[in-house]
Amino acid sequence: MVTLRVNWRVSLRLLGGVLKWLALPLAAPLGLAVIDGDPTAPFLVPIVITLAAGLGLERLETDTQLYTREAYLMVALSWLCVGLIGAVPFVLAGNGGLATPINAVFESMSGITTTGATVIDDFAAHSRAILLWRQVIQWLGGLGILVLAISILSQLAVGGAQLMETESQTQDVHKLTPRISETARLIWWLYAGVTLFAAGGLFALGLAGIAPNMDAFNAVSHAMTAVATAGFSPQPDSVGAFAPAAQWLIVPFMFVGATNFILIYFFINGDLGRPLRNEEFRFYLGLVVGASVLMGLLLVTDPTLTTTGVEETARLATFQVVSLLTTTGFATVDFNAWSPAAKHLLFSCMFLGGMAGSTTCSIKLLRWLIILKSFRRDLFTTIHPEAVRPVRLSGTAIDEETIRDVFSYTMLSLVIFFLGTIVVVVDGARIGLELSEFEALSAAAATFFNIGPAFGVAGPFNSYSPFSELTKAVMILLMYVGRIEIIPVLVLFTPSFWRS
Amino acid sequence: MVTLRVNWRVSLRLLGGVLKWLALPLAAPLGLAVIDGDPTAPFLVPIVITLAAGLGLERLETDTQLYTREAYLMVALSWLCVGLIGAVPFVLAGNGGLATPINAVFESMSGITTTGATVIDDFAAHSRAILLWRQVIQWLGGLGILVLAISILSQLAVGGAQLMETESQTQDVHKLTPRISETARLIWWLYAGVTLFAAGGLFALGLAGIAPNMDAFNAVSHAMTAVATAGFSPQPDSVGAFAPAAQWLIVPFMFVGATNFILIYFFINGDLGRPLRNEEFRFYLGLVVGASVLMGLLLVTDPTLTTTGVEETARLATFQVVSLLTTTGFATVDFNAWSPAAKHLLFSCMFLGGMAGSTTCSIKLLRWLIILKSFRRDLFTTIHPEAVRPVRLSGTAIDEETIRDVFSYTMLSLVIFFLGTIVVVVDGARIGLELSEFEALSAAAATFFNIGPAFGVAGPFNSYSPFSELTKAVMILLMYVGRIEIIPVLVLFTPSFWRS
Ligand SMILES: [K+]
Ligand SMILES: [K+]
Repeated sequence: MVTLRVNWRVSLRLLGGVLKWLALPLAAPLGLAVIDGDPTAPFLVPIVITLAAGLGLERLETDTQLYTREAYLMVALSWLCVGLIGAVPFVLAGNGGLATPINAVFESMSGITTTGATVIDDFAAHSRAILLWRQVIQWLGGLGILVLAISILSQLAVGGAQLMETESQTQDVHKLTPRISETARLIWWLYAGVTLFAAGGLFALGLAGIAPNMDAFNAVSHAMTAVATAGFSPQPDSVGAFAPAAQWLIVPFMFVGATNFILIYFFINGDLGRPLRNEEFRFYLGLVVGASVLMGLLLVTDPTLTTTGVEETARLATFQVVSLLTTTGFATVDFNAWSPAAKHLLFSCMFLGGMAGSTTCSIKLLRWLIILKSFRRDLFTTIHPEAVRPVRLSGTAIDEETIRDVFSYTMLSLVIFFLGTIVVVVDGARIGLELSEFEALSAAAATFFNIGPAFGVAGPFNSYSPFSELTKAVMILLMYVGRIEIIPVLVLFTPSFWRS
Repeated sequence: MVTLRVNWRVSLRLLGGVLKWLALPLAAPLGLAVIDGDPTAPFLVPIVITLAAGLGLERLETDTQLYTREAYLMVALSWLCVGLIGAVPFVLAGNGGLATPINAVFESMSGITTTGATVIDDFAAHSRAILLWRQVIQWLGGLGILVLAISILSQLAVGGAQLMETESQTQDVHKLTPRISETARLIWWLYAGVTLFAAGGLFALGLAGIAPNMDAFNAVSHAMTAVATAGFSPQPDSVGAFAPAAQWLIVPFMFVGATNFILIYFFINGDLGRPLRNEEFRFYLGLVVGASVLMGLLLVTDPTLTTTGVEETARLATFQVVSLLTTTGFATVDFNAWSPAAKHLLFSCMFLGGMAGSTTCSIKLLRWLIILKSFRRDLFTTIHPEAVRPVRLSGTAIDEETIRDVFSYTMLSLVIFFLGTIVVVVDGARIGLELSEFEALSAAAATFFNIGPAFGVAGPFNSYSPFSELTKAVMILLMYVGRIEIIPVLVLFTPSFWRS
């Protein structure tokens, strides 16, 4: 039966399923709080809330059939509710500025959206349990977005997201996993496995004495937010706190986190050539290498920088390019001190993002690739209007409506981003926080495209706490809207969504 | 007969027609040089060049039938050749930095593209004749772009440019003027008339003693570059050199210059309600008023600014918003000293531009309006995929392919702009000119979108002379490509353009 009116009960019932399961990851910081002798209430209370709300909502409805509108509503509600509930531990822990409602929601939304923008000024004021919760919520956000992207957005064709299926492997996956829950299970194992692998590798560096301060807590924490391309760190100086070997090791995991997980699935299952047969992956690899080399040249020729040699320059350039291009947002150095040219290159990376079907945010390379291919085709058809020449991706023709959706989505992203910059800079002027134009541009980009650190006031080793409450509220909205690919939120504000 | 191979002889023959006529406007500064007793060779030489080249090229071919490729080639060659020949007076005059080839071509291309970016550091070093030539070439650029936009680009459907015809008046115009030369004649009278009206008004203010320094030279000079939304001024402090009344009077002429001239034609012919029935015009008017009011609020609340009252604040805000939104680039004040919020608002205006079918540059409001309408429609069809709801402009449905062209053109503009910013900032670092990111962003935007002044080093009362020769060469290319709407240049670089 096709419902004529949006069946919000179904959305709420499935939201209940999400909330119920949120109790489980809350047990991780709870356990650490018990071990460290820290207060447990900040985690016990939200566990009770999620279980009660989850089980209650599940009883609302027996039907679980999602149609388009129910799916959008469920997605929008899930990220909103988890973002709000995730703030409860910060409020209840009551430490420092993080305990104010706006800051707690900012940090939590920054977590679940895998943004990694923080309002923490003093990391030492917080227990390891609270810091672990930030990491866990980002890891969950990464998992959530994989399930959303691969099994929901691609089916709803948001901004051309169905194109991540033009690779035949996704048709196989659909045969393997005809239902969302099965896709989720497949992705879950893959995601957990890669994270475990990263944590093991980092921990081994710690054990071997190569990265002495990389203990179990730090290994797990950074593995979770590298694979999720999320970027929170329990260290005030981010990945800069660790030895070069640990910094290098984190690079491939950010890279993998920003790769289409279906490609990773097939790669792990023995089809080693699959990624290189994928045009988007080749584009991604080329951009990472090209931007890293260009950044290396900019760092080498910068007379104000004193790097000790080739390894350090290569590491600084590669790490920071990969971190920003994959929308992770880790830093090994305060890149605020770099030259405008180097900073501008990092700023450019913010608009790219990794592959579709990954944990990455921003516009994503799939869309940019189609846009570039479309430019080329359009130049041809300008001269030969009678010619029919479809845009092809990895050999498959893309229909024209999808190309228009890609352009529309990308343009909508850029327009929202730019409107965001106006709010940030005008509201900054209102409270006497004189931001430079570039600070405003980068802060809006860093939140809307879910990167995390920006430049200047919100730089990699700084925090977002100086912004006004109004700006923070707008940024929370930007992170939220940007993360779930805009459309699921915007459609809720169209009258036709609610009419039959 | 449809030609299979591009008939470049036809393009060159028509280029000859353009060059031949260029001798006439060169006579204006020649006359002033005679009056002032300044050297005449800088103008006599290019007059001989244009007449010889023009008459020579016209003998190359008798056919004058333009098809698509011939039209693109002719357009690309016209702006390029006029840009190069326009530089000859600057080189031959031999005064200051302007006489170096790169600077002379920069200034000339900035003129013919109605950009208004200058490399002159010392205005006193140049004769009135040379300064008048800058104004004349901009006025010609404005006329050229009107003919190009209304009679060529709209027929070639560049980036949705044919939509400026959805107003029924253009069908009338096509009946009136079935050939380019007739359209050109209609526009010529209109354009010359509006310019004369502006010059008369400004001169009257001078005669009446209200704007004492507004002599005939200044009145004509500023009338020409206001109506052309071009922005050169013989005064080092631009329109700031004149009394408030003159500043106010220039505002409506910039506004008119950025209005579709077909609308002006019908308005002058008695259809006073026509502009307000045009959706793009209403959008334009709304943006001008809205941005001026917001700018006024930003100026009033800026504690560092000391304005003397309501009139001054209203004038500063309105003038600068209209100047940048219409892509004119005049300044009455060094807006570099304004707050980041105010500068960011002006920066935003750079991406808008006036109406299609005007002398204005940048992306243009027609395209933005269609993009916004398309967003709204897409949200509806996301929920109702079965619904057919065309995007309408002033009541007329727009076909989907045109909408895609609009998105594609706008995105291509933004991509080229952004690549331009990378070149500007990286090449700046190379020569030790440390530009801030915002300076690089605004300098690329100011040249590619043909605005003129940027922020910081290339601010309204500064010049582009500090940039490297390489950057200037890239900026010349940006001005050129941006002015003739990208496609006529890019298609020349596709192999299929030259093949049969
Ligand atoms: K991030
Ligand atoms: K201009």
